[in-house]
Amino acid sequence: MYTLTPIAVVRGGRTDLSDDHWGAVQSTIELAPEFPAESLAGLEACSHLEVVFVFHRVDEASIVTSARHPRERQDWPRVGIFAQRGKARPNRLGVSRCRLLRVDGRRLHVEGLDAIDGTPVVDLKPWLREFGPIGEVRQPAWSTELMQHYYDR
Amino acid sequence: MYTLTPIAVVRGGRTDLSDDHWGAVQSTIELAPEFPAESLAGLEACSHLEVVFVFHRVDEASIVTSARHPRERQDWPRVGIFAQRGKARPNRLGVSRCRLLRVDGRRLHVEGLDAIDGTPVVDLKPWLREFGPIGEVRQPAWSTELMQHYYDR
Repeated sequence: MYTLTPIAVVRGGRTDLSDDHWGAVQSTIELAPEFPAESLAGLEACSHLEVVFVFHRVDEASIVTSARHPRERQDWPRVGIFAQRGKARPNRLGVSRCRLLRVDGRRLHVEGLDAIDGTPVVDLKPWLREFGPIGEVRQPAWSTELMQHYYDR
Repeated sequence: MYTLTPIAVVRGGRTDLSDDHWGAVQSTIELAPEFPAESLAGLEACSHLEVVFVFHRVDEASIVTSARHPRERQDWPRVGIFAQRGKARPNRLGVSRCRLLRVDGRRLHVEGLDAIDGTPVVDLKPWLREFGPIGEVRQPAWSTELMQHYYDR
């Protein structure tokens, strides 16, 4: 067992739990009081961040440990919780990329972060090209369909 | 505070903490006993995984909360811990992509996972193209230099 202490929180952006249209959402990531602005030094040279956060609004009793239909769509296959990116997952961790618009002291202004107002952030990393997947990416048809409007603006 | 329970462990691959040449490293990710094979159902349709793990060998006393030179290279700028991907970071979380070679029951055979033998895994997600960074990626020169041999084979 490991303990996570939030290092920051998402402020602004969206408050509802709807699934799509995250592309134009702007929010700020505010560092927890114990971290100095220096912990972000140099980040302004990066266009994108990788953000690790907790789906804190997911009730632990609802966590799926086997398989389910993504978004409860019966027309999509029943796939394992680790073969989809749904929120109700063991450890309730989200990982995504967003654009970094501006660093303002201990606040990061970002665009396209798919996390709601109040979300606890447990890590921030610069996105580096070399950390992207190597080689051709293959993914199932249902996931391409699911993602169709995810980052619409 | 949130509690993380490992959902899997990395077996095989590398045992030393050296930084580079991860591209050809093959290892397996073995699910913890409480998760059925069904939790991986459908994952074989994905070419790449996103893996969240704990840098468990990092001594908590060594964690940096402000800034430091990446890899202690004095010729690179001193940057914030959240502006680099070094291991000695708050919450000690690693996030990376790897190729999925084969699913074998409750074991995943992977290539290019930059986590050593025994690493606790706290989440597994399918990599989906749409979750990559949107728009042009910009990153500092020191990071491009640092990554030059990271995924060499």
